[in-house]
Amino acid sequence: MTSKGSLIVISGPAGSGKGTIVKLLLQDESYTVSISTTSRQPRSDDIPGVTYNFVSSEEFIDMISNGELAEFAEYVGNFYGTPISTITELISSGKNVILEIETQGALQIKSRFPEAILIWLSPPDYDTLDSRLRGRGTNTDEDINKRLTAARRELQLLPYYDYIVINEKGKAEEAAEKIRKIVEVNSMSTKQNSDFVREFYKL
Amino acid sequence: MTSKGSLIVISGPAGSGKGTIVKLLLQDESYTVSISTTSRQPRSDDIPGVTYNFVSSEEFIDMISNGELAEFAEYVGNFYGTPISTITELISSGKNVILEIETQGALQIKSRFPEAILIWLSPPDYDTLDSRLRGRGTNTDEDINKRLTAARRELQLLPYYDYIVINEKGKAEEAAEKIRKIVEVNSMSTKQNSDFVREFYKL
Repeated sequence: MTSKGSLIVISGPAGSGKGTIVKLLLQDESYTVSISTTSRQPRSDDIPGVTYNFVSSEEFIDMISNGELAEFAEYVGNFYGTPISTITELISSGKNVILEIETQGALQIKSRFPEAILIWLSPPDYDTLDSRLRGRGTNTDEDINKRLTAARRELQLLPYYDYIVINEKGKAEEAAEKIRKIVEVNSMSTKQNSDFVREFYKL
Repeated sequence: MTSKGSLIVISGPAGSGKGTIVKLLLQDESYTVSISTTSRQPRSDDIPGVTYNFVSSEEFIDMISNGELAEFAEYVGNFYGTPISTITELISSGKNVILEIETQGALQIKSRFPEAILIWLSPPDYDTLDSRLRGRGTNTDEDINKRLTAARRELQLLPYYDYIVINEKGKAEEAAEKIRKIVEVNSMSTKQNSDFVREFYKL
């Protein structure tokens, strides 16, 4: 069957536990994350090529014009994005590539890589989402409203995702295992195995 | 998440091990098979309602005219088919319903039940397929040629299947486990969880 890796997009509202789940997945060396390219200035704790790949605004705009990016977004005056070549190389080497990005970027990825697996990581119910959005102690009402508006906007795109994985409180490993199964099962899809299918057509 | 069962169609060439895999899946009581309806005469070893549901040719033709069948086929003058109501009732009760049918029927099922999971059970390679088709001891050349022609015809529809599960020699339990994972993962699909998605839209 296929020896190529999978492209896995993980999105979810603030407090859905994306960071924890990604760390659990990365314990298995068949998984890796794609390093984003940005036009923002490196900070003191940045390590070029590790936290981000740094380029100038001009270079970033060139990458956009040349169609080199699988997805990109602007955030407070800086660009952030993922080069197509980075993803292609990692997948070809057999790695399962995780992109932890928001919904707009996820849909950009799906249009460039139709075989990408879009996973929405979700709290188990609305009350949990609400309390997680409110619950980070020091949030002002304005902060909370901003988060709720952002979450509402994100959720409009939820039907475009392939899978919904529920992350129950204290069960991050269970959620990670569900994602591993999704990846394993997708490697058995007919679409991912067109070479195998072609081989049999010789019959 | 969803409490409905899944509809699983399993097809594959002669000698792919379908029967063994289905038996393994049925050890778990969340799985069941749908009993076919036929217009053929009951034989001495038939148990009505267990091996088949028996109806007259007229009754069967009525079922076709009334659009009651999810799939049907004619074989040496007799009709065989699966009523839509049987499938719907079993799925609603939470059962995972297995249909072991050939490719034409599988595509009929997919058009009636777009959420059906079409699984192609395959020998690992062409040589194995060839030797399994030839290998049942007493086959004449004519038999073998018939089987090869049938297999070739079936394989034309392989790209319409959702998954390809390889059944390696002596590893039927592994293949069954792959199918269990496919079913589990499909229960996390966004399509299968539209109620859950709607719940979150209330946000």
